[in-house]
Amino acid sequence: MAASLPQTPTPILDAQRVQRNIAFMAARAERAGALFRPHFKTHQSAAVGEWFRDHGVRAITVSSLQMAEYFAAHGWRDITVAFPFNPLELARATTLAAQVELGLLVQSGEVVQELDRALQHPVQIWIKIDAGYGRAGIRWDRIERVTELALQIAGGKHIHFAGLLVHSGHSYHQSGVAAAQRIHAQCLERLLPLQCALLDAGLEECRLSVGDTPCCSMVEDFGPVDELRPGNFVFYDLQQRALGACGDADLALALACPVVGLDSERGRLLLYGGSVHLSRDRVALPSGAQAHGLLSAAPPWRGGWPATAELGVPWNSAVLTSLSQEHGLVELPPGEVRRYREGDLVLVFPAHSCLSCDPHSHYLDLDGARHGRFRLA
Amino acid sequence: MAASLPQTPTPILDAQRVQRNIAFMAARAERAGALFRPHFKTHQSAAVGEWFRDHGVRAITVSSLQMAEYFAAHGWRDITVAFPFNPLELARATTLAAQVELGLLVQSGEVVQELDRALQHPVQIWIKIDAGYGRAGIRWDRIERVTELALQIAGGKHIHFAGLLVHSGHSYHQSGVAAAQRIHAQCLERLLPLQCALLDAGLEECRLSVGDTPCCSMVEDFGPVDELRPGNFVFYDLQQRALGACGDADLALALACPVVGLDSERGRLLLYGGSVHLSRDRVALPSGAQAHGLLSAAPPWRGGWPATAELGVPWNSAVLTSLSQEHGLVELPPGEVRRYREGDLVLVFPAHSCLSCDPHSHYLDLDGARHGRFRLA
Repeated sequence: MAASLPQTPTPILDAQRVQRNIAFMAARAERAGALFRPHFKTHQSAAVGEWFRDHGVRAITVSSLQMAEYFAAHGWRDITVAFPFNPLELARATTLAAQVELGLLVQSGEVVQELDRALQHPVQIWIKIDAGYGRAGIRWDRIERVTELALQIAGGKHIHFAGLLVHSGHSYHQSGVAAAQRIHAQCLERLLPLQCALLDAGLEECRLSVGDTPCCSMVEDFGPVDELRPGNFVFYDLQQRALGACGDADLALALACPVVGLDSERGRLLLYGGSVHLSRDRVALPSGAQAHGLLSAAPPWRGGWPATAELGVPWNSAVLTSLSQEHGLVELPPGEVRRYREGDLVLVFPAHSCLSCDPHSHYLDLDGARHGRFRLA
Repeated sequence: MAASLPQTPTPILDAQRVQRNIAFMAARAERAGALFRPHFKTHQSAAVGEWFRDHGVRAITVSSLQMAEYFAAHGWRDITVAFPFNPLELARATTLAAQVELGLLVQSGEVVQELDRALQHPVQIWIKIDAGYGRAGIRWDRIERVTELALQIAGGKHIHFAGLLVHSGHSYHQSGVAAAQRIHAQCLERLLPLQCALLDAGLEECRLSVGDTPCCSMVEDFGPVDELRPGNFVFYDLQQRALGACGDADLALALACPVVGLDSERGRLLLYGGSVHLSRDRVALPSGAQAHGLLSAAPPWRGGWPATAELGVPWNSAVLTSLSQEHGLVELPPGEVRRYREGDLVLVFPAHSCLSCDPHSHYLDLDGARHGRFRLA
């Protein structure tokens, strides 16, 4: 029996593209001689997680302890929570550390002390370093402070010093391969002296973990990094496309949105699909315009699940220009509104796939099969 | 027993302020001689809904059929879905119409035809009018088109023409009482000729329904409107405060966020609380800076539920300047970082309360009691 069409905004994934994206990134990590520890915060789905196992992935990254619990319940046994540890979740971490090989992130001695007092099982502790992004972590040039913290960790009971963890989020502000290489090279220039200082101070090991999708997609020589933690690449999105990190046919996720209004005078479609379904993130188009998303060039889905459902590629002149809570407005080229009817489902490639998946309880694939995902309790 | 502190970002409501806000708006609607049909899309909570009953509220507005089903299951019997009807949900509407007095919104004859064919129980049909906002609806000056549509509805089997429904969302772009009055006056100037034309064309009645929180909070003379549908006023937020629609002590919702990083050098706090918890909406501060939120001036919650928990009022110089998926960065005045420790819970007043509640499954009130809310299936 053919699947029935979703009635409300629903994320649709192209399993083939997802699997190709995973294979691509697994091969890059292998060439780099680095452990591939993908970030699961983008898909947040046990089902999608299974597809990574085919590429030998055994170690993952998540962004919260709740998400770690979800993936632990689905059989993952090596999980790094790549977010500065929140002391209010000490009991949760202690329980989880009994079940999986847990990695946690710290940036202060007070938090290390609390962890060391509470934990009853071995935990890998990473120090979060700010290598230029300026969001979180200890600045790369505070060598003394980092050394002191690493030694404190190494002296702990159940905690082990794992190394230095960086997220070069400023790679989202520049496009192209050269920019990615420059950002990664600068990151290494800043991490290596720190790593040297720590080894000189007597620490047994100091791994280097990096992770943004633009650099992981475009850098050719990763140098001596020990692990790669990209996440977004599993679906990619229009922001990544604008950076040059992916092409049209790598976009593996779109939101199916019902058309609820036609405005042929103004050349617009009104969609059921707003900021609660898509987030308010935007991307700059080559024209300079800001878009929350682009329609797919694939024909709308009408009357039932298409015989050959496909995500298609972005239609660069069908722009989701404005969002309110449940409404999305798409501006079309002159005369194109007539392609659509109320009750059609259109596919919207989002500016930022991570945030566009977050509100939803599940994905559908192109066969209409349902894949559940983690949600905040 | 005292409540235990939430461990992750959690919306906290001040029940007294909520009830005061409800009383305030109920009184305004009464003075205006209009039905108070509050929009429940902001709180989306059956528990908060109960507080409206004390003010005689029996009729509500929601923004999706799923939300309507949730409130129908919680005893609400008169529900308008103030969103252009989505033909993919015809079966859902048909079922719901058997259970409650249902109001639906249309803007095209094709959709009216589909509804009329499918519905087996009486439904109130509103025509969505664009009176200047430019988002959805038929333009106010398309009198012929509106008349034709109204007559089509009036000629239907189970569908009844209710009237004209407007959302003046452009009231969010100008601040102050005078601006709100001007926008409302213009809205009436545009609706009244349309109403006249419809009555002249033989329609028995044509109610006028308006609803944005800025106008509903500030306009003194509503003229001949039949119902008011504001929603945001139940919590208000920093955007409404910037518009002059509320004061500091009316802000009834804040997000409790764990402090996970202190940066005394740069005068910053790193919060566990990002765009998945708060949305990316912003508000312009008097300084011109853009803020996703402001910290409360109330002391942080530390070590347990405070003996006298309070939301406090915004601390105008403690600004949530940047958000990523799970991270929030707060910039503080020089020297103020020392007030905080990792593991503290701080209260963040959001720029836009509707979107900041949306990702969460429940609220806590100031006594730590839990109030569930609707979530997307």
